[in-house]
Amino acid sequence: MTAPVADDHIIALAGGVGGAKLADGLAHLLGDRLTVIVNTGDDFEHLGFHISPDLDTVTYTLGGVANSQQGWGLEGETWGFMEQLARLGGPAWFKLGDRDLATHAYRTNRLREGATLTEVTVELGAALGVTSRLLPMSDDPVRTVIHSGGRSIAFQEYFVRLACGVPVDRIEFAGAAAARLNPAIGALPRPAAVIICPSNPYLSIDPILAVPGARSWLKGLGVPIIVVSPIVGGAAIKGPAAKIMQELKAPVSALGVAAHYRGLADGIVIDNCDEALAAEIAALGMAVRVESTVMRSKADRIELAGACLAFARALLQTPAFDHPPASTK
Amino acid sequence: MTAPVADDHIIALAGGVGGAKLADGLAHLLGDRLTVIVNTGDDFEHLGFHISPDLDTVTYTLGGVANSQQGWGLEGETWGFMEQLARLGGPAWFKLGDRDLATHAYRTNRLREGATLTEVTVELGAALGVTSRLLPMSDDPVRTVIHSGGRSIAFQEYFVRLACGVPVDRIEFAGAAAARLNPAIGALPRPAAVIICPSNPYLSIDPILAVPGARSWLKGLGVPIIVVSPIVGGAAIKGPAAKIMQELKAPVSALGVAAHYRGLADGIVIDNCDEALAAEIAALGMAVRVESTVMRSKADRIELAGACLAFARALLQTPAFDHPPASTK
Repeated sequence: MTAPVADDHIIALAGGVGGAKLADGLAHLLGDRLTVIVNTGDDFEHLGFHISPDLDTVTYTLGGVANSQQGWGLEGETWGFMEQLARLGGPAWFKLGDRDLATHAYRTNRLREGATLTEVTVELGAALGVTSRLLPMSDDPVRTVIHSGGRSIAFQEYFVRLACGVPVDRIEFAGAAAARLNPAIGALPRPAAVIICPSNPYLSIDPILAVPGARSWLKGLGVPIIVVSPIVGGAAIKGPAAKIMQELKAPVSALGVAAHYRGLADGIVIDNCDEALAAEIAALGMAVRVESTVMRSKADRIELAGACLAFARALLQTPAFDHPPASTK
Repeated sequence: MTAPVADDHIIALAGGVGGAKLADGLAHLLGDRLTVIVNTGDDFEHLGFHISPDLDTVTYTLGGVANSQQGWGLEGETWGFMEQLARLGGPAWFKLGDRDLATHAYRTNRLREGATLTEVTVELGAALGVTSRLLPMSDDPVRTVIHSGGRSIAFQEYFVRLACGVPVDRIEFAGAAAARLNPAIGALPRPAAVIICPSNPYLSIDPILAVPGARSWLKGLGVPIIVVSPIVGGAAIKGPAAKIMQELKAPVSALGVAAHYRGLADGIVIDNCDEALAAEIAALGMAVRVESTVMRSKADRIELAGACLAFARALLQTPAFDHPPASTK
């Protein structure tokens, strides 16, 4: 370990809504000292647009313009485009708000001009006032594919059109083997910790880890890797995580999440209501911290983010890492 | 002339707003007995969309959903997309309403699926309740290019971004020589007349006539070809027609319009205020009809359309055509 730990830099891994909330709390505390590596396995082409749902959710959330009622898209959204497209008989299954559409048009136009997804992500973040650094996991296409009963289903088909209504036999990250980890990730300063946000482990975090070199880069940082369980009381706060875990025969619990990240995460943050699982998780060799993890308000996000940072600092001073105490600031 | 004249069928040629108004009057009188051949020289690619401004204007106008205040686009339009695109720093010079965008997305998506522009035009017309047949002049790309002071300027750059603010030395219809006249045009029943709507002769009608075979097909129909002058009292009702005529050293008058169509049009409809020019135009060998040609209301459109049909019927019975009187419908 030659590079010094940059005490003031944190790397987070995130997918969609749940992950974006914690990333928002971290961004509030850290600003430009935070880098969020975002899943692009959900990306797809629709009506000629390159749509990056998780990048958009994180960007909108950190930009303070996310639609909090709806759980996705932009606040103050209008729907003239969708209404008219439906009238014309166009494909209306994927809802595109008028303002949201500007993001997709901007991105698609810039990509066509030759910009990388990373460059476009920086531009969109800057335009929406995001001060943290957001990085797609790769500039190359990785596409999550759901295998169900012999069928291969593109992710948004599964997630939106089928509303996750088919059983998952297997999840594939098409293109991952050939994808290059975002070069900007390798160029990041060595952080004080890595925080895996409470995103779907199978659909949001695994695609990031599937990019060749991602896992070894994370482990090679030699800093605490902390995961926040997206499963609380045996259920997912949002989305199909619990359903998928059941279908893949994983225990639907914080214990199942811990087992999923065994060998990668050094510590896990579980919810108060799952405290009874702490001993069993600890037996997997993972440090456990019990917190209130359900984020209903901005204050909740900031509080959980602070708890994650404190947990990371504490782990950094254990013999496994044996770093000196973090300097002031 | 072997094919019988289909008394109940009229073909109109049209470009944008002015032409669309007369086409709307004709459509009111004729319904599915009208075919409108529409200029696609203004078409362009923008933000990945295939945009066909004249097809859209004619479709919206005949569908009764055109924005009458604005003079282009759809009624009840909203602007969330443009506002957000401007916020993101995207190209905002070409205004795209949220609902209008659905037309472009639908068309682009269908073209990408392999549909022809003709097929898409039919689908969009049907969705918006248009009963007349609308046909792009060609399914192949023809692009109007403005030559000004040694520069070549794409049409929408000239028309929208530069607001026609540079002098026109020459107008080119790039791609026209290789374009194939829409095959659906050759398959039309022989009409009772052709009506060239009061669109810009240089920018809206000439591109249609530039498609190989268009002019000879029109003349070969052997039916009256009538043009309605878009120049009234020495000025254009809308758009740069007068300015361009001046720059191209053509007399800015109904006489100039008549001279432009000499050898093609058999008759011209001029406005009451230009009655003094009637004799001079007649001397060009063109029949002249004087009408109120400024269309402020739907009733004006229908009245002018009716006058054009009456003029055509009258010409059809002159020795030049020598057809029997039109049968009762």
